[in-house]
Amino acid sequence: MTNPNSDVSDWWSTSIIDMAPGQIRFRGHDIQDLIGNVTFPQMIWLMTRGDLPTPEQARLLECALVAAVDHGPQAPSIAAARMAVTCGLGLNGAMASAVNFLDDVHGGAGEQAVELYTWIDDAVQQGAGLQAATLEMIDRWQAERGKFIPGFGHRFHKPEDPRAPRLLQLVDEAANQGVVSGRFATIGRVLQTELNIRKGKPVPMNIDGATAVVYAELGFAGPLARGLFCLSRSVGVIAHAWEQMGQGGRNKGPTPPHYRWTYTGPNPIEDETVSKES
Amino acid sequence: MTNPNSDVSDWWSTSIIDMAPGQIRFRGHDIQDLIGNVTFPQMIWLMTRGDLPTPEQARLLECALVAAVDHGPQAPSIAAARMAVTCGLGLNGAMASAVNFLDDVHGGAGEQAVELYTWIDDAVQQGAGLQAATLEMIDRWQAERGKFIPGFGHRFHKPEDPRAPRLLQLVDEAANQGVVSGRFATIGRVLQTELNIRKGKPVPMNIDGATAVVYAELGFAGPLARGLFCLSRSVGVIAHAWEQMGQGGRNKGPTPPHYRWTYTGPNPIEDETVSKES
Amino acid sequence: MTNPNSDVSDWWSTSIIDMAPGQIRFRGHDIQDLIGNVTFPQMIWLMTRGDLPTPEQARLLECALVAAVDHGPQAPSIAAARMAVTCGLGLNGAMASAVNFLDDVHGGAGEQAVELYTWIDDAVQQGAGLQAATLEMIDRWQAERGKFIPGFGHRFHKPEDPRAPRLLQLVDEAANQGVVSGRFATIGRVLQTELNIRKGKPVPMNIDGATAVVYAELGFAGPLARGLFCLSRSVGVIAHAWEQMGQGGRNKGPTPPHYRWTYTGPNPIEDETVSKES
Amino acid sequence: MTNPNSDVSDWWSTSIIDMAPGQIRFRGHDIQDLIGNVTFPQMIWLMTRGDLPTPEQARLLECALVAAVDHGPQAPSIAAARMAVTCGLGLNGAMASAVNFLDDVHGGAGEQAVELYTWIDDAVQQGAGLQAATLEMIDRWQAERGKFIPGFGHRFHKPEDPRAPRLLQLVDEAANQGVVSGRFATIGRVLQTELNIRKGKPVPMNIDGATAVVYAELGFAGPLARGLFCLSRSVGVIAHAWEQMGQGGRNKGPTPPHYRWTYTGPNPIEDETVSKES
Repeated sequence: MTNPNSDVSDWWSTSIIDMAPGQIRFRGHDIQDLIGNVTFPQMIWLMTRGDLPTPEQARLLECALVAAVDHGPQAPSIAAARMAVTCGLGLNGAMASAVNFLDDVHGGAGEQAVELYTWIDDAVQQGAGLQAATLEMIDRWQAERGKFIPGFGHRFHKPEDPRAPRLLQLVDEAANQGVVSGRFATIGRVLQTELNIRKGKPVPMNIDGATAVVYAELGFAGPLARGLFCLSRSVGVIAHAWEQMGQGGRNKGPTPPHYRWTYTGPNPIEDETVSKES
Repeated sequence: MTNPNSDVSDWWSTSIIDMAPGQIRFRGHDIQDLIGNVTFPQMIWLMTRGDLPTPEQARLLECALVAAVDHGPQAPSIAAARMAVTCGLGLNGAMASAVNFLDDVHGGAGEQAVELYTWIDDAVQQGAGLQAATLEMIDRWQAERGKFIPGFGHRFHKPEDPRAPRLLQLVDEAANQGVVSGRFATIGRVLQTELNIRKGKPVPMNIDGATAVVYAELGFAGPLARGLFCLSRSVGVIAHAWEQMGQGGRNKGPTPPHYRWTYTGPNPIEDETVSKES
Repeated sequence: MTNPNSDVSDWWSTSIIDMAPGQIRFRGHDIQDLIGNVTFPQMIWLMTRGDLPTPEQARLLECALVAAVDHGPQAPSIAAARMAVTCGLGLNGAMASAVNFLDDVHGGAGEQAVELYTWIDDAVQQGAGLQAATLEMIDRWQAERGKFIPGFGHRFHKPEDPRAPRLLQLVDEAANQGVVSGRFATIGRVLQTELNIRKGKPVPMNIDGATAVVYAELGFAGPLARGLFCLSRSVGVIAHAWEQMGQGGRNKGPTPPHYRWTYTGPNPIEDETVSKES
Repeated sequence: MTNPNSDVSDWWSTSIIDMAPGQIRFRGHDIQDLIGNVTFPQMIWLMTRGDLPTPEQARLLECALVAAVDHGPQAPSIAAARMAVTCGLGLNGAMASAVNFLDDVHGGAGEQAVELYTWIDDAVQQGAGLQAATLEMIDRWQAERGKFIPGFGHRFHKPEDPRAPRLLQLVDEAANQGVVSGRFATIGRVLQTELNIRKGKPVPMNIDGATAVVYAELGFAGPLARGLFCLSRSVGVIAHAWEQMGQGGRNKGPTPPHYRWTYTGPNPIEDETVSKES
């Protein structure tokens, strides 16, 4: 950018984008060289990581992005998006409403799973045995973060979430080709085994656990795993919000209107204070 | 509500509101008895706490709500609201954008201060000396939550934030009248003294610290302190967003457009991979 | 503010707030003079309008703010707020999600009703008969804006929304005392009568129609009517989100989980293109 | 889905996704058949359109998605995202804040341009000459929608936005291969020519005008053009929010803090009403 730096310009410093009239560069690449030459997943990688991935890395990233687009209208994020458009919001507002919901509980498990995997991997890199490290870090997670182990367990998909084995298979293929190390797929599988034993029943690796394997293998930091999940799920959000626009409706509530809700509060109050004032 | 309960209705149980055709009751009070007979702060209390406050309690709550309405357009929340309307959003969208920003760092100090005050108060209730409890809980907070003590310190208002002494004065008056105990005002002042000593300079109680005294005196839980701050600050948000609508502008950025930003990334990249593909 | 103006400071000009270290002024009033001396509704008026209202004006404004705080968890905004906290959001995020929903369909009727009333009032001021102006503007609204007349009709409260007659009664009292003119209450009632005749059944004035009478009487512009509705409804949002925090739950969906949804799409597809690639 | 339909399930009907334990199907395709076999743009198409695109269609869609990822931190959406993370929000909250900003003014031009192109195309399909239809629809747009012609003009990129000619080139190539008709590229170019003539200076087709050509060629409805723009721009949002997390900062305002703002309101007010009450 040709304007002289100032404290005002410095306040908004970035290494992502450079511009001059008629010129836009991302991470040093002219936009016109990127359009038509890199895939959307490659662009996502370039923007968030700073360099271009190999086609093989980008293809593995693409698998995770494809896998997480939607889990149906009972997910609060998708329900919110569908209700939003009946309140007058456009697709931007519907998408914003849904993505905002993808917070620690609804959208944070991928980020947390990357973190947990990394704890285990760090311990192994420093000499611990894989199984011992896994057991230790399960305990540490539950002590520090609470009982839920991120990335495992599903109230609906039992005994298996169909997305997990497919993603692990693709990670294995990439590991065989030297694209990734395969360490985090192994960690995920050991975690799976130990959790099954502890619970005495299948605790299936879910979409967050499986995409976290992909993201960790590819070197994405935990917060980016959440960001990429938001990006992926936005596809479902747009699809559902658009479908709802076609279905119509005004101020769509969570249940058919005639159900209403169960009231659990006090019966009518004869309040002297209030009634005397009137 | 006259409809029979069902699992669907139970899913949305609430003790806040009951309805039948032509009838709306909040916490057992008919809406037509509330309108014109209770103040807005009384209504806020009724809705969030479940019972009606005395007029004196409501007046103290009102002071905190009045105090926190705005801190100018450089606050990111207010800046966001002003930018939002130039992007096409209505006041609802501007307000949503701003309130969303009032998260842990920008809007959480009041909630955190209520929590810290409560730690100290609990220790005192269990027999600790006030000063000792204060020093211990400062240390505990910094060990568990980080170096920032919520509710104290201001980069701009030095040596004093004008809102804090005024609110404390009003809490003192309420304590003298037996409306509140005054315990939390005392805790706030002791905290102030100890922080000044530790820092060797004034660390003024700020709006969050002062409103947290009010909220704690009135028995509001920490999360509600954040909620009420959001409500109060929404007033400033609406005022600024509406003023911006009058000023006009399209896609208002953070700085005058000719400043742009400082680019800190790589220079143009001659990327063989990319250019060869094209 | 003491800093010299610059193009950067000018970019964020405002007439709402002035600050210097230790000093905060709203519309020219020191904050410490406002806290404890003006009510929250007076502060809301000062911030949005620029001057302080009389106590009588503020009390009428207060009635509208009290009246609109909530309409139960089946309203999409409230449902969204309750779902939001189970996804990990704090009260700020819950409130943002809900308020964002208060767009044209869910939260815009008050703004639109102020506009419609003003059309009628303008016509009357220019000599038209009230009934004729009302009929003309109903037609104009439906031609330009669609079939829904804002502020009238309710799918649930029949034959009457209990909030409307109470608010109109309070406007009448204020008109009798010379606080407001009463013109817009009259317009609202004539609109009500004509709509009943056209529809051949009661089309009750709803909360938006009734608060719009208040806001128009007090001179609030249409967009501010929406802003004030958002502020009022935020009270219910906070109450419901806080109640939901107490109830717990993770990723609360719109219906009990075992219901799921009805699938209306294609049956399993044997896609040669896809399956051959695998 | 195997559960019997009910009015509750019907309330959330969708043709997008079907589920059973261990099974997830999108538009009739098992998720495990899609992962690794379709690209992310193909998945986006499948979800929003209902069928799988050809690889050639998907590649053209991909070009539009790559082209619009970012326009720097002075765009209000990106600035909002960067400020958001310094307020305590995660990447989901930052993304929600930014995408919410992509409303009619900031994010609606693509949708509007698709609509304008379609007006022209419809007129031509019904026998009008292309130039005459273009001139007529420019006039109609300005009469009905306002002076801004969506998709053309840029305050910064003059005489040309580098993204537009590159995207048109790729549309031309796709048209030559029979992937698309090329009609909308022609319409865009004629619009460009006529606007240049009317203005007497270059009014460059911008990113919204160029991506709208792509979306219209591929048969996307206007609202989906906005949704896809939101998806694309979310990539830049994530990159900037993540970079800001690395830079740190708390409550980042729009300008360096020492600038503040220019106050344009009344000087201190000696308000008898207020001061006497105290």
